[in-house]
Amino acid sequence: MPDIPSALDELTLEQKAGLGSGADFWTTTAVDHVPSILMTDGPHGLRKQEGATDHLALSGSLPATCFPPAVALSQTWDPALVFRVGEALGRECQAAGIQLLLGPGVNIKRDPRAGRNFEYFSEDPLVSGILGSAWVSGLQSMGVGASLKHFAANNQETDRMRVSADIDPRPLREIYLRAFQQVVEEARPWTVMCSYNRVNGVHASQNRWLLTEVLREQWGFDGCVVSDWGAVADRVAAVEAGLDLQMPGNDGFDDAKVMAAVRDGSLDPAVVTEAAARVARVARKADQARRPDTSWDTEDHHDLAREVASRAIVLLRDDQGILPLDPTRHLAVIGEFAARPRYQGGGSSHVNAIRVDVALDEIRARAGDAEVSYSAGFSSDTQADPVALRADAVRAAADADVAVVFLGLLDSQENEGADRTDIELPADQLDLLEAVVAVQPCTVVVLSHGGVVRLAPVVAGPSAILDGALLGQAGGSALADVLFGIVNPSGRITETVPERLEDAPSFTNFPGERMHVRYGEGILVGYRWYDARSIDVTFPFGHGLSYTTFAHESLTLAVDGDSVDVRVTVRNTGERAGREIVQLYASRDRSTVVRAPQWLVGFGAVDLAPGQSGEVVVTVPRREFEYWDEELGRWLVEGGEYRIAAGASSRDIRLSATAELPGEIARYRLGAQSSIGEVLRDPVAGPAFREVFAAMFDQFSGAEGTDYGPMLDSLPFGRFLSTTGSALPAGMADDVLARANAANGF
Amino acid sequence: MPDIPSALDELTLEQKAGLGSGADFWTTTAVDHVPSILMTDGPHGLRKQEGATDHLALSGSLPATCFPPAVALSQTWDPALVFRVGEALGRECQAAGIQLLLGPGVNIKRDPRAGRNFEYFSEDPLVSGILGSAWVSGLQSMGVGASLKHFAANNQETDRMRVSADIDPRPLREIYLRAFQQVVEEARPWTVMCSYNRVNGVHASQNRWLLTEVLREQWGFDGCVVSDWGAVADRVAAVEAGLDLQMPGNDGFDDAKVMAAVRDGSLDPAVVTEAAARVARVARKADQARRPDTSWDTEDHHDLAREVASRAIVLLRDDQGILPLDPTRHLAVIGEFAARPRYQGGGSSHVNAIRVDVALDEIRARAGDAEVSYSAGFSSDTQADPVALRADAVRAAADADVAVVFLGLLDSQENEGADRTDIELPADQLDLLEAVVAVQPCTVVVLSHGGVVRLAPVVAGPSAILDGALLGQAGGSALADVLFGIVNPSGRITETVPERLEDAPSFTNFPGERMHVRYGEGILVGYRWYDARSIDVTFPFGHGLSYTTFAHESLTLAVDGDSVDVRVTVRNTGERAGREIVQLYASRDRSTVVRAPQWLVGFGAVDLAPGQSGEVVVTVPRREFEYWDEELGRWLVEGGEYRIAAGASSRDIRLSATAELPGEIARYRLGAQSSIGEVLRDPVAGPAFREVFAAMFDQFSGAEGTDYGPMLDSLPFGRFLSTTGSALPAGMADDVLARANAANGF
Repeated sequence: MPDIPSALDELTLEQKAGLGSGADFWTTTAVDHVPSILMTDGPHGLRKQEGATDHLALSGSLPATCFPPAVALSQTWDPALVFRVGEALGRECQAAGIQLLLGPGVNIKRDPRAGRNFEYFSEDPLVSGILGSAWVSGLQSMGVGASLKHFAANNQETDRMRVSADIDPRPLREIYLRAFQQVVEEARPWTVMCSYNRVNGVHASQNRWLLTEVLREQWGFDGCVVSDWGAVADRVAAVEAGLDLQMPGNDGFDDAKVMAAVRDGSLDPAVVTEAAARVARVARKADQARRPDTSWDTEDHHDLAREVASRAIVLLRDDQGILPLDPTRHLAVIGEFAARPRYQGGGSSHVNAIRVDVALDEIRARAGDAEVSYSAGFSSDTQADPVALRADAVRAAADADVAVVFLGLLDSQENEGADRTDIELPADQLDLLEAVVAVQPCTVVVLSHGGVVRLAPVVAGPSAILDGALLGQAGGSALADVLFGIVNPSGRITETVPERLEDAPSFTNFPGERMHVRYGEGILVGYRWYDARSIDVTFPFGHGLSYTTFAHESLTLAVDGDSVDVRVTVRNTGERAGREIVQLYASRDRSTVVRAPQWLVGFGAVDLAPGQSGEVVVTVPRREFEYWDEELGRWLVEGGEYRIAAGASSRDIRLSATAELPGEIARYRLGAQSSIGEVLRDPVAGPAFREVFAAMFDQFSGAEGTDYGPMLDSLPFGRFLSTTGSALPAGMADDVLARANAANGF
Repeated sequence: MPDIPSALDELTLEQKAGLGSGADFWTTTAVDHVPSILMTDGPHGLRKQEGATDHLALSGSLPATCFPPAVALSQTWDPALVFRVGEALGRECQAAGIQLLLGPGVNIKRDPRAGRNFEYFSEDPLVSGILGSAWVSGLQSMGVGASLKHFAANNQETDRMRVSADIDPRPLREIYLRAFQQVVEEARPWTVMCSYNRVNGVHASQNRWLLTEVLREQWGFDGCVVSDWGAVADRVAAVEAGLDLQMPGNDGFDDAKVMAAVRDGSLDPAVVTEAAARVARVARKADQARRPDTSWDTEDHHDLAREVASRAIVLLRDDQGILPLDPTRHLAVIGEFAARPRYQGGGSSHVNAIRVDVALDEIRARAGDAEVSYSAGFSSDTQADPVALRADAVRAAADADVAVVFLGLLDSQENEGADRTDIELPADQLDLLEAVVAVQPCTVVVLSHGGVVRLAPVVAGPSAILDGALLGQAGGSALADVLFGIVNPSGRITETVPERLEDAPSFTNFPGERMHVRYGEGILVGYRWYDARSIDVTFPFGHGLSYTTFAHESLTLAVDGDSVDVRVTVRNTGERAGREIVQLYASRDRSTVVRAPQWLVGFGAVDLAPGQSGEVVVTVPRREFEYWDEELGRWLVEGGEYRIAAGASSRDIRLSATAELPGEIARYRLGAQSSIGEVLRDPVAGPAFREVFAAMFDQFSGAEGTDYGPMLDSLPFGRFLSTTGSALPAGMADDVLARANAANGF
């Protein structure tokens, strides 16, 4: 076979344009030597549809393992486990003849109401970046390509096809693009999927800055940019911006526009060739990586799904130590989700699960001979009588030793395409809980939900709360394992649970209006916001308890070149084996730029037997201390002292120490716009001017006790010169500034 | 004398350029028939400097009446009183030969830390607009021109010469430009002063959009735009943008640039002529309005300053009714400000007051034979011993019947040119208060400060708090009048007192970094923010008590064309004569745009004897219900129901009613970018398309219980057509959209 470039030389413009759009809803166009490849939705399972199904309506896909969605995956804080999920997905893809799986989603959970939060990892870019990379690496290790999505700043469903995410450079780089950058640079996904929305006014699909300057030129991406399905508004503009593949295809409708643009000279044919080459390279690579004889074991994958689910469960609280459950005690299992699991969200990621473990059955299986009653307590069926259901559940709770109440959001509340308007649990469920707690002091709540829910009304009542998020098809057995202590919970939440929706960073800036949403909170997203404003939260980012306890005994930092080696010694001080996830947060007291009070720079885990101690070792690379300097247009590490703290959550800091990091002082091109302070602090310009100006500055001091320091310091140099310049030797100002700029590399 | 245009015809380019900059620091250039006029700083008094003084250092101005600064003026909520202050200032200007007084400042108090807040009226644009108009009207009624400043969005001192206020269109129009618009349209100031900062990246002094499109073309301003002193970065760009007069002059340095630009063809000479004509018109008008024989009585002006000050004082609380003071009781007056008044801020507005009333002396004068002790308690002199001062004050407090403690910010804490970094009262003062309250249950606190201070630690202790803000030269007597009940306090605060600085809207977006500050809180400034996020505050916007009580007995609304006539009946239910300020707030439950939960639409006051009732009548004009529609580029009133509430403060709403207002439904040009929902809701396009599409929509419904309503509703029409358009008759889409757009006036 010829290589791609020479093969493309032989193609007609029509063939090249044709490579740039799908052959149908799920496949690329085969042209000459370039094979067609098949994609399906993901990310937590395959959604392969066959035949002329109703693609948009998302019905009737082939059965596949439904792993925990990203919301739960992230709660493991375990890239190795996420890698294995990626591998398993790759295995299923190979067996099903799928070459590209459309995931992972690494968008930031900017607002708790955002409708696809269940498909994303975290409010924190590092968690998203590390776990996104692991997922891609795992999948691609099986010869199946990933599609990193939704690039970029696709943080809401409301008006998602048109809304412009209006974001300043620092939050865009440091928060919203950050995980994408990490995954592209570390895991090299074969494709990136551009999002529906606009970024600072320009459709992502035709945003040259985003798709070419940032993604390819700055990050070195060499794969193929695929559009989200229907995200292309103007194909010619998209191709020029760096989009390679429009999905789904529309029978050549837009290919014809590309050809016309080339013919009338408005589009460079080389751009079309390059896009076709990128599609062809990915198609060729994917085709060559086919392993149609791959087989996989549904039990093995179910077991993996269960392992991940059990590791994703978070013990939010257990004040009276009623967990794990005593299997000899009479249990009242309450809540429809115990019998009809809520385990994934709606929309394109919806998987037709091979089988679904039911928590009630699994609890009964582990309870031995002890009595386990079940009452629905509430129902998603609006025909049901809530009063009767509640009364029945309250009777059951009163009769039992312990009540286990399954609460959560309904399927209908969490779907791609719509944001929530509040973060409340359904009122009938809260009423139920209140009634149960009134008769049963030993109550455990088990939560199922894709997006954050307000838990202030929940924490008031029960003794213990397990947060299952959405656990995939094996969630039922995983929950039973944790309830009975077969698995000691170790998950940590990756999104803050605020006391009130009104406290959320984007509360007043979501979902925007008239096609614009202003990211007015800047870099202060998630815990960064709650910390900066000292707002109390119900459960902080990184929170999660265990059936045992851990002490953080020591923290050592060693600066090794640009990175910091962090070692934390942890001891299991309780009576059960358990896993501690140690989180590392950096902070910097004095900075020339706005900083979050603390930000996650790394994490690690250790499994410990009772009494055992062990070490968590994390190398924190230089990039975790960077900020994006807008004026210089690059990342910059300020040299100096940083504090690094180790904690069990963002608000349970156990140890901290400081490290002196090598770095730089930001130096900007000096000119008329520079302030006098900047000029005088410059190592070259400062000494030269200081002497000449000394007399002038003296004249301003001491008047009526007024301090003119800040006013003078920030006076633009050019305006100062225009009134005082005659006091300088001719040409001196220009000469000195030129020398200073040369010394600073300008 | 020839009229201005023909006079200008005879001028040389050099003369015209020369008219565009000052002759020196305070005067305009006299050219041919155009006289020179004199300006001085304001706004709450004249700062006329003579001879070769140190202008920037602000020392040594001639004595003038120091009226209460805007922070206190605004607390009267009384445009008639503010008009009289403007008149008095005009009288002093005429007597001093001043033709332009540099004020008022109507910038919005965006952040409590902003260093010049004491020079501005309020966090609310309507309060600022109404009182700013009254000030201008009063001044100009005396033949002296105002200079409305600082135009625009000059809301901080930090890096004020360079920082760009980055503001979205709605907050810019609805909050930051709003008061300027009202004053320009209602009071027609002779000049507007452009600010130092940049607005959305462009220096105010060279911002054509601001100075020409908005100010002149949209608002009809026909006066002269003066630069703030030193605000011109590029004179040629400034002249092109619409700046008329650069101040101070720099000996023709920048005039030469204007001439060079005209000569090399880069600047249209007509622009220079027009700018010169505007300067000439104002100079001529001002010159003709000179009344050099004007005299004024220092006692009369002092009395007015005292009347305003007494009306500006706010009774924040008095739980035990210890105010007014019983003149027969033994008083311990404590706090340095009782003997050394803090009555104005530092910087360009600083007035060399003719005389200053001292609260301690005035209290003694009203206390008759009763004992009045004085202890400094703390000192701004860092050499003083705070422990000894405090001990002395505590002894005095213990010995007395009542302690009156004067607290506040120091002169050194409030100056033009620097923002505060916190909103705390000095720690030694809080320590003093705590110690006094521990020994003396009857304690009154009197506050002096220009910017908001955190009062959470103050409200915990004393029985009563009087807030004097900064009261000008007669503040001491005004405070004594209120303390003894000679005046019943009626002032209301015009800026929210938050519980914590961290609660403030711009807390995380102030003062920005690297020459940019993002107004991320949008339109939710001041009480709009605290209300939207349901944040508890120490004292809400509009709060203020009286020595009597008032009942709001009835509220009636009458829609009269575009405006609403509001009548509120108020009864004095206490035992003293008093003045009630009734505030009217509008709200709208459902809106297509983000709204503050409530916003001030009017206010009025009534003086009532005990038992008497009276009516406050306010006509709320249509404009108070407008929002700025960015896409249409104009103000728009949504038709429908609005609630109007009457209250004694923004959080003490007494009555409310609803009114149905005439208005419109925003209709945008329909096209490919329009959503399907917008197209289907259009009265012309909707019916035409609905039938054709009915079959297609049916195909999406009912799949797996998933609701695709929002997704379909927001799908761009163009993208929908590109996949389904073949189902439409040829040309139908274009035809229908054209008809719909024509019907909507596009």
